Amino acid sequence: MSTPNGTGEDGTDLDRSTVVYDLDSQCGVEDVETGNKYHATVNGVVEYGVFVDISEQLSGLVHSSNLIGTYDVGEELIVELDAVREDGDISFVEVQVAEYETEPVGPGTRAATVDFEEIAGEQAHLDGQAVQIKQTGGPTIFQVRTPNRVVPCAAFEEAGVRAYPGVELDDYVRVTGTVEQRDGAYQLEVDNLSVLSGEAAEQVEDELTSSDAIGAADVEPLVEWPAFEKLRDDLSAVATRLRETVLSGRPIRIRHHADGDGLCASVPLQYALERFIEQTWEDPEAPRHLLKRLPSKAPYYELEDVTRDLNFALENRNRHGQKLPLFLMLDNGSTEEDTPAYENLAHYDVPILVVDHHHPDPDAVQQFAEHHVNPYLHDEDYRITTGMMCVETARMIDPDVTDELRHVPAVAGIADRSEGEAMDEYLELAAEEGYETPDLRDIGEALDYATYWLRYNDGREYINDLLNVNCDDRDRHERVVNLLSERAARDVDNQLDAAMQHVTEEDLDNGARLFRIDVENHARRFTYPAPGKTTGKIHDRKVAETGDPVITIGFGPDFAVLRSDGVRLDIPEMVAELKEDVEGAGVSGGGHLVVGSIKFVSGMREEVIEALVEKMAEAEIDEELGSSAVTPEEA
Amino acid sequence: MSTPNGTGEDGTDLDRSTVVYDLDSQCGVEDVETGNKYHATVNGVVEYGVFVDISEQLSGLVHSSNLIGTYDVGEELIVELDAVREDGDISFVEVQVAEYETEPVGPGTRAATVDFEEIAGEQAHLDGQAVQIKQTGGPTIFQVRTPNRVVPCAAFEEAGVRAYPGVELDDYVRVTGTVEQRDGAYQLEVDNLSVLSGEAAEQVEDELTSSDAIGAADVEPLVEWPAFEKLRDDLSAVATRLRETVLSGRPIRIRHHADGDGLCASVPLQYALERFIEQTWEDPEAPRHLLKRLPSKAPYYELEDVTRDLNFALENRNRHGQKLPLFLMLDNGSTEEDTPAYENLAHYDVPILVVDHHHPDPDAVQQFAEHHVNPYLHDEDYRITTGMMCVETARMIDPDVTDELRHVPAVAGIADRSEGEAMDEYLELAAEEGYETPDLRDIGEALDYATYWLRYNDGREYINDLLNVNCDDRDRHERVVNLLSERAARDVDNQLDAAMQHVTEEDLDNGARLFRIDVENHARRFTYPAPGKTTGKIHDRKVAETGDPVITIGFGPDFAVLRSDGVRLDIPEMVAELKEDVEGAGVSGGGHLVVGSIKFVSGMREEVIEALVEKMAEAEIDEELGSSAVTPEEA
Amino acid sequence: MSTPNGTGEDGTDLDRSTVVYDLDSQCGVEDVETGNKYHATVNGVVEYGVFVDISEQLSGLVHSSNLIGTYDVGEELIVELDAVREDGDISFVEVQVAEYETEPVGPGTRAATVDFEEIAGEQAHLDGQAVQIKQTGGPTIFQVRTPNRVVPCAAFEEAGVRAYPGVELDDYVRVTGTVEQRDGAYQLEVDNLSVLSGEAAEQVEDELTSSDAIGAADVEPLVEWPAFEKLRDDLSAVATRLRETVLSGRPIRIRHHADGDGLCASVPLQYALERFIEQTWEDPEAPRHLLKRLPSKAPYYELEDVTRDLNFALENRNRHGQKLPLFLMLDNGSTEEDTPAYENLAHYDVPILVVDHHHPDPDAVQQFAEHHVNPYLHDEDYRITTGMMCVETARMIDPDVTDELRHVPAVAGIADRSEGEAMDEYLELAAEEGYETPDLRDIGEALDYATYWLRYNDGREYINDLLNVNCDDRDRHERVVNLLSERAARDVDNQLDAAMQHVTEEDLDNGARLFRIDVENHARRFTYPAPGKTTGKIHDRKVAETGDPVITIGFGPDFAVLRSDGVRLDIPEMVAELKEDVEGAGVSGGGHLVVGSIKFVSGMREEVIEALVEKMAEAEIDEELGSSAVTPEEA
Repeated sequence: MSTPNGTGEDGTDLDRSTVVYDLDSQCGVEDVETGNKYHATVNGVVEYGVFVDISEQLSGLVHSSNLIGTYDVGEELIVELDAVREDGDISFVEVQVAEYETEPVGPGTRAATVDFEEIAGEQAHLDGQAVQIKQTGGPTIFQVRTPNRVVPCAAFEEAGVRAYPGVELDDYVRVTGTVEQRDGAYQLEVDNLSVLSGEAAEQVEDELTSSDAIGAADVEPLVEWPAFEKLRDDLSAVATRLRETVLSGRPIRIRHHADGDGLCASVPLQYALERFIEQTWEDPEAPRHLLKRLPSKAPYYELEDVTRDLNFALENRNRHGQKLPLFLMLDNGSTEEDTPAYENLAHYDVPILVVDHHHPDPDAVQQFAEHHVNPYLHDEDYRITTGMMCVETARMIDPDVTDELRHVPAVAGIADRSEGEAMDEYLELAAEEGYETPDLRDIGEALDYATYWLRYNDGREYINDLLNVNCDDRDRHERVVNLLSERAARDVDNQLDAAMQHVTEEDLDNGARLFRIDVENHARRFTYPAPGKTTGKIHDRKVAETGDPVITIGFGPDFAVLRSDGVRLDIPEMVAELKEDVEGAGVSGGGHLVVGSIKFVSGMREEVIEALVEKMAEAEIDEELGSSAVTPEEA
Repeated sequence: MSTPNGTGEDGTDLDRSTVVYDLDSQCGVEDVETGNKYHATVNGVVEYGVFVDISEQLSGLVHSSNLIGTYDVGEELIVELDAVREDGDISFVEVQVAEYETEPVGPGTRAATVDFEEIAGEQAHLDGQAVQIKQTGGPTIFQVRTPNRVVPCAAFEEAGVRAYPGVELDDYVRVTGTVEQRDGAYQLEVDNLSVLSGEAAEQVEDELTSSDAIGAADVEPLVEWPAFEKLRDDLSAVATRLRETVLSGRPIRIRHHADGDGLCASVPLQYALERFIEQTWEDPEAPRHLLKRLPSKAPYYELEDVTRDLNFALENRNRHGQKLPLFLMLDNGSTEEDTPAYENLAHYDVPILVVDHHHPDPDAVQQFAEHHVNPYLHDEDYRITTGMMCVETARMIDPDVTDELRHVPAVAGIADRSEGEAMDEYLELAAEEGYETPDLRDIGEALDYATYWLRYNDGREYINDLLNVNCDDRDRHERVVNLLSERAARDVDNQLDAAMQHVTEEDLDNGARLFRIDVENHARRFTYPAPGKTTGKIHDRKVAETGDPVITIGFGPDFAVLRSDGVRLDIPEMVAELKEDVEGAGVSGGGHLVVGSIKFVSGMREEVIEALVEKMAEAEIDEELGSSAVTPEEA
Repeated sequence: MSTPNGTGEDGTDLDRSTVVYDLDSQCGVEDVETGNKYHATVNGVVEYGVFVDISEQLSGLVHSSNLIGTYDVGEELIVELDAVREDGDISFVEVQVAEYETEPVGPGTRAATVDFEEIAGEQAHLDGQAVQIKQTGGPTIFQVRTPNRVVPCAAFEEAGVRAYPGVELDDYVRVTGTVEQRDGAYQLEVDNLSVLSGEAAEQVEDELTSSDAIGAADVEPLVEWPAFEKLRDDLSAVATRLRETVLSGRPIRIRHHADGDGLCASVPLQYALERFIEQTWEDPEAPRHLLKRLPSKAPYYELEDVTRDLNFALENRNRHGQKLPLFLMLDNGSTEEDTPAYENLAHYDVPILVVDHHHPDPDAVQQFAEHHVNPYLHDEDYRITTGMMCVETARMIDPDVTDELRHVPAVAGIADRSEGEAMDEYLELAAEEGYETPDLRDIGEALDYATYWLRYNDGREYINDLLNVNCDDRDRHERVVNLLSERAARDVDNQLDAAMQHVTEEDLDNGARLFRIDVENHARRFTYPAPGKTTGKIHDRKVAETGDPVITIGFGPDFAVLRSDGVRLDIPEMVAELKEDVEGAGVSGGGHLVVGSIKFVSGMREEVIEALVEKMAEAEIDEELGSSAVTPEEA
């Protein structure tokens, strides 16, 4: 701490060694405090004592009665500020300090520690880190990170010309200037900006890295759930990293699975992060510039997506002086299929965080992701949904969002068919907020339906209304959810009306019943529900009708969607075998153990599906094993 | 009326009770008028009378000869302004008024009644309604609606902080401030802004709702046409609603059929509304912010479109303080298929206006639409095209657009094959402007061709050139129309060259000739003309060749387009029956009586088309019945 | 030249007649120079001479010893400025000049000839051409072109009101004003702006058109190559036209083939032009507003593209006062298929430049294109790639880009399989920069791969990194190229793994071997490589395996891609014949002699392909003829 106002009146602060302040020559009376100690230089010797300077503007008398030694002009001593009289006269007392630390003090109020509004128009200074340097047509804007907020500092060299070209991104700096308002935000009009080094830089670094503003809030989970406890540290680390990312001026790009759980994960985090940015950045545009949420088209992070994301990020760096973003993958990102995209990001030194509950390929992911949170890494499974994890993470970022999120884990759980032990408690929590189970199901279906029609637009406001997060009208929320969930149900009914009678059935050797549906020829195309969801709905009906182990295959010209209940499948393994067994079929795909999808060249469909069915007929029956939560849907 | 200048010189206005003005203390000589009555306070008593204040700045003598009572300093009386001499001396006459209304008067010129340029830099005040409240990084901008214009009022509390937080959208307010220029627009820099209530509020409301600016202009239709007369009141109501919408600060989003008639409807309205916004809003950016025209992808208003429109509207509300828009559906919007989208809008209390000439489902639409104008509701039909209706509506909004629109109804009529009685007159009108019938046909084809390639972009400038509305170069208009219409004709010829020999023919039992074409396998795909138009062109050739009753079916894997001449079909009824009769086919669709389209799952194509042909073979022949106007086109 | 400072100290300049300057009344001492001649008026007669005015502010003595004639007050004479003393006193010498030209001089420094920074805040004037006139909400901005830069001149009449409405685009003007900074750019705050006419206008026109800034730089080609020499004048004309276009305020829209050579052509030109705009325009936003690069979706310039380009250009004209752009077609644009788009542009008087190496249809193109550069027009061929040509053109625009482009022609040559004589030299040049042949191949594959995933987004920054042009981190360049080229190779391998065993083979009568592959049914769809590239890779393998003359056909439902080696095909001729021979097949297409593609209606595929194969069986075998460079790829 370099503030001269922060320490005790005397040297009794046991935790800290004595501090002697070394004032900048420009310091005025607003920078000093009675009882603090200062380095002083004798500027005149008189009969009754010596006059000393502690800055160009601050001189005063050390009366001979308060002098310990004898001094000539130019000699240095340490004095304690005794009093500042109303007429401006200052008196000092010489002190002797065996051991002390010198702290430099810039002129003016320390800007980081007071409310800007109080010191508008005044001189101020701050120490911090230059986390963004943007050259505008006019001044150069340095966004300077202090322990708990990021302050724009405008330095004008010449219009459009980089001021202080020696200052580089992430340098530790000392800024002196005047507090001014501009376009609604306070900023420091820079008089001087210098790079700190050595001890001074380390001190600032210490202040920033030890700031309370970084650490995740220590909130109690919404429900007690031993399985979830294993993940808390991981999530807390993610929350800390995200808060630190905001303060470090790095934008955050959220990419999430375009389904109910993906939205229950990403929307709360978006909300909490926006609030945190508002609290810490003076620039009112910062939430818009630093945060972007986008659903991914595929269930994994495709090269198409990453290519565009990267190009967008590179343009923002060039045009707005932004750092390249941190990528936060939610409800996807855990599989080997994500790694080509990650590798691309890695070449740009872009950090990646993954929070997911899909079956992971930890080795592939962990060489790229800074954090990889996944229940499977702790011997848990998909039943801890990403939405459940991210609601807690959002609360660690801003505990004040809690009241708006109590129903969200239940929505996520129902949307992803979680049978986690905590579901009952989550449902109860939601019920306390007035959401009964059918309401939660409707929200999930409405989110799914809206996502389909938004076609990978983020649909920010509309989605907030549907999930009732950051939404100001619960009544409207309910009406819109009712409308969309009814439409979704009607469209599913229409689809199954056409499709069900074209479903064929056969009995496999292992006793499972296999249903097939040609979703290209016997379902409506290019409308809701898409082939994957259509297959899932048919499967659900067949499971309900038969009560037997059931496998359902929905196939198109070059793909098939697989669902199973009560059969011990290992779809990723099957796909790997088919690649070998069926030559010239271009087989790819995967998914979870008992639910997945597969692609092939259309001319080899018959061969691939027959080989697949053969394998299925060999699988063990397992009455206890349910279908996995996540239905991959492809058109 | 709170203007002191608005009433008669004496109390003889029989319709209104006497008004006594209560001046704000800041009022000056520009706020008063000889003959008006004012509340006054005695500030000095002299031999020859009393000096009274009617504001801090306005004092004068009531000569004893003009005094009725006797008054001490501080006592109140009512005076009439007798004279303001050149030297500034003011004289009053005391009056006694048995019954009166007091009207407060703010200081300065009444801003709404004078040209801002004249009073730039001066104090002014206005009463009105806060129709938009936008928080900028600096001041809060209140857009205040007065009887005939909308004035930006900038109130600064603290940068980025909402000024006058008690003022809500649509409150009636009194604003006092200085007239300043900012970014090219005049605005009032607010000194004071207060919410009016009770009588004062009612008075403002009266002024706004009775303003001439709202009412549609009373223009004579371009042609005399009894059938059209039935619709005039409906269209006038729409024009009034649109003018009122502009003044009320609500954006307008035009969604229209992406064809010739749809453009002849929407482009003139866009033009007239842009002009009206320019005339009534000081903010030069208002036309861009308040109006957006977009073609719809489907012949009805799809869930995909409405989902995006809504999300866009919600974002504009949050980011720019805009109201949610009014939706104006043109040349579509009348059918049951539009209602899911409408229901979605209804939950956001968004007004909907529909002007259409497609066969309507009035019950479905009227529960959502504030106005539903459709000739079928008045026992007329598609022959009154939407373009014809909207040209008249545009003229009711701004009569000055008339000269640029005389040819447009004829373009609309030809594009939609209208055989309305007024077509001859419309053609004559166009001919007077130099457009012969082939020119009009070319414009229609060029619009259709451009729309195809613009792929649902609005193509604003280009379309204006093609239709020669809001276009400054007729020569270029002609050259571009020639080019595109030639290209369109050539592309149609190329398409039919390939397709015609694959057309199969059979005779139905009822004597009609049925032609079939596989537009997926025997026409070029993904180019102009699309399957619907291709089918229509084949049909037209066959009608011309044979002279017989003709039905044409253009089918793809999961759809069929239907055209007929001389056969009494009822396609909506047929579709309804097919839904029942052909199970598992997922039949949907509809259209007009004798032209339409149908969808099904591709695996059931044969069954559906055979069942359809059977029904067609039973239809009555009607030599008089022509093909309907509107060709549904789907790719 | 109207600058008083530009000529010699005496009259010895033999090339020019003597100039006598006529100063504006506002001219001060900064506008004159010792030794120049001025028109003067006598304002006082004294014993020792006469006092003369050469402007209101500049008066001085002509001593009687320096007087030739005798003058009264008000009489005029010509004087030469003798000296300006430190105390401001000015002395003149009368001169007699038999023949001279009068040049008017505005007050203040001539803005075009000095550094703005030096005269910030001072009065200045300039003569030039108004190349852009933009009405802002505040002032009207005239962008005034002087011989070597374009200067914004802000004239304020009234906010949002057009100042100097008599001034039209491209008028020659004289501007007087104060040099001010605004938003990072220097501009002239206009005091007066007048249109020049007659001689004065001609003089300015001469200055602008004879300016060195227009002419292409005379750079030596990177390699000596006689074939290339034939094209140099054409390319120099293109470079000159582009520099002139920048100075004339017309935006440039680059449309290029979406492949390796297209990027090697467009990226260097984009870079050189951006730099040239930065050098010549004061407005720092100019590079963004004046230049846009976009890959074309098809191998020719489609109506869809031109329709959107035009509409975009028309909107920019209306909203930003921009001229309509010049269109620069790179690595496509030479064929008859481009002409419908060109015709559309022609109606808007939009200039078109084409630099291409595809087999051209010169007659079709030259009626629209101002310049059409193509090696085939000089009896050369595709081996001179567009990238090679454009690297030289970029250097003619800005020679300083040379060092960053030395490797680019080699990339282009490899990407397009050029076997030009200069390839060895280009490879050597690249090797000197550290790029070995495999590196260059990898860059080409990486560009191809990135383009596929960018899906016609320009991907500016990412592409710059891949090509290492305007990229600041070679290490990252290498890593990203490695990643993408590896991915591309892996995806090709995967595709061929599936496809190769479905390739059928037959021997044609002429001895060529024909391979066929159904790329719809036996290759993965909607992924890299697309059908065209897939066919090309299969073809390459078959050529390598067999060493025989080889033809490969990759067909889908309604298209076929053709590749051949060692066979004298003439694909454009074949397509023309098939159009005639196979009725009802809707055949279209084309390409190069030995590589191309063809489209047809899917129902006639068999007939078309059989007829095509028959023709191929008749073609002559030519062992020397290799496959052409450019692989058309279509999905």
